[in-house]
Amino acid sequence: MNIEVVEVGPRDGLQNESVIVPTAAKVAYVEALIGAGLRRIEAVSFVHPVRVPQMADAEEVMARVPRVPGVRYAGLVLNERGLDRALKAGVDEVNVVVVATETFSQRNQGMSVDDAVRGFGVIAGRAREAGLGVTLTVGASFGCPFEGEVDPARVAELVRRCPEAQEVALADTIGVGVPSDVRRLVEAVGEVSALPLRFHFHNTRNTGYANALAALEAGAAALDASAGGIGGCPFAPAATGNIATEDLLYLLHRSGVTTGADLPGVLAAAALIEAELGERLPAQLGRAGIWPVTGP
Amino acid sequence: MNIEVVEVGPRDGLQNESVIVPTAAKVAYVEALIGAGLRRIEAVSFVHPVRVPQMADAEEVMARVPRVPGVRYAGLVLNERGLDRALKAGVDEVNVVVVATETFSQRNQGMSVDDAVRGFGVIAGRAREAGLGVTLTVGASFGCPFEGEVDPARVAELVRRCPEAQEVALADTIGVGVPSDVRRLVEAVGEVSALPLRFHFHNTRNTGYANALAALEAGAAALDASAGGIGGCPFAPAATGNIATEDLLYLLHRSGVTTGADLPGVLAAAALIEAELGERLPAQLGRAGIWPVTGP
Repeated sequence: MNIEVVEVGPRDGLQNESVIVPTAAKVAYVEALIGAGLRRIEAVSFVHPVRVPQMADAEEVMARVPRVPGVRYAGLVLNERGLDRALKAGVDEVNVVVVATETFSQRNQGMSVDDAVRGFGVIAGRAREAGLGVTLTVGASFGCPFEGEVDPARVAELVRRCPEAQEVALADTIGVGVPSDVRRLVEAVGEVSALPLRFHFHNTRNTGYANALAALEAGAAALDASAGGIGGCPFAPAATGNIATEDLLYLLHRSGVTTGADLPGVLAAAALIEAELGERLPAQLGRAGIWPVTGP
Repeated sequence: MNIEVVEVGPRDGLQNESVIVPTAAKVAYVEALIGAGLRRIEAVSFVHPVRVPQMADAEEVMARVPRVPGVRYAGLVLNERGLDRALKAGVDEVNVVVVATETFSQRNQGMSVDDAVRGFGVIAGRAREAGLGVTLTVGASFGCPFEGEVDPARVAELVRRCPEAQEVALADTIGVGVPSDVRRLVEAVGEVSALPLRFHFHNTRNTGYANALAALEAGAAALDASAGGIGGCPFAPAATGNIATEDLLYLLHRSGVTTGADLPGVLAAAALIEAELGERLPAQLGRAGIWPVTGP
């Protein structure tokens, strides 16, 4: 069995850290990740720098990261202005977020869900015309910090309304999901869409790795993770971030699932960004050690 | 669906913390746990105080904890001297550890596996005669820090040789297991024993909660956890401890599994021991918050 691991540390990870990491360190982080065999990297966000100052150097990052055959870079895009920047910066794919609930959509993107869906259609159409890959990420698919429970049928309805997507990513933005939620979502979305499914988990309440395995078992094609587990949760400031790439790889590889990525290499990338951020990161493998001990 | 959660914070948790917690605080922790609806508590260890000074006050703890109808206290016992203390102290059940590998058995208990199996028979016989419950814990069931991989057949063979047990606990002492290991162990042990299975997971490499769910799905009757996630791993000093009771309850309850325990109550117990230990504990729910928000 095989699954694609999408490295989101440089984008979702660093975006939610209070430290603003210099461009050179971001590029070094990306280089280390590529060295570790990761082939799909969400590297930047084209959200307005006033809202996300951590990503203000998106163009510069994209200009400096190595272009390696087989490596695809994604950028997060929320509107046409962001898409213009993404096209100019030369990403390979765009990740466009539509939030599942009205309140969160208004607070996160300053627009209604209907407007976000319409916007998605325009962005996706233009991006595909330009030859870019297009991911629809449904934010707050597992629960909303403002509205509480989110019905999987509501998520499925959103997916149905965004047929321009080439991939659907279901995001547990606030880290509240459990494996039975994953299965319900896969079922609901599968009724309206045959697109490959990708999952985005935060380990905010220690359910992220169980969810990842549940997604794999339910047929997901890809899983997001961040080397070091960086990122945090914007709605629970003291909580941990994305599931960590190294801990996910340990779980997957020991479960007999291949990823193409190299665990010691990811540990090196995580150590690099840990030193840059100057704080103890949520990933555990770096402290506990690979087992049985392998590598040099 | 229902599963029993065995609270091991007062024993395995506090035993692996560098701080020695005063008896009164241990008793308050136990009281808070009982207040949270936990009904089976591994409260003390009767290992020699020179080896585990954190548990030197076992007798005093047992003399001071409340005796509440329906609440059962367990004590860890490694030899007959420990059993004598356990009998005198008035625990309801003993947890006797036999380690799956030769090297670990020698280093942990100073005896061969054969001697440990013989010792188990003697201890279990005497304990059952005295009316105590007897758990066989197979240490390092998922892997050994000295010998590496552990064949589930080896674990099953140990279980077969200890028919005096009334319950079998399979311990991932160093936190290396994954859900497929859980399933293999359940299958292997199930071939030689019909005893109820209990699992003891450490979240050392972030696989603990996925393992807990896998154990539940494979038919386990009980899961160990420690409020606060205290404990650490003696073989990876920087790593986290037992899976946390509150994070486990969140996962189970949201998965539709009942435990009889009360999440806000466990959070209160964890806050109490966190203040006592004076360090940020691995449990996440206290920082992230129950979701959707419940309670007073």
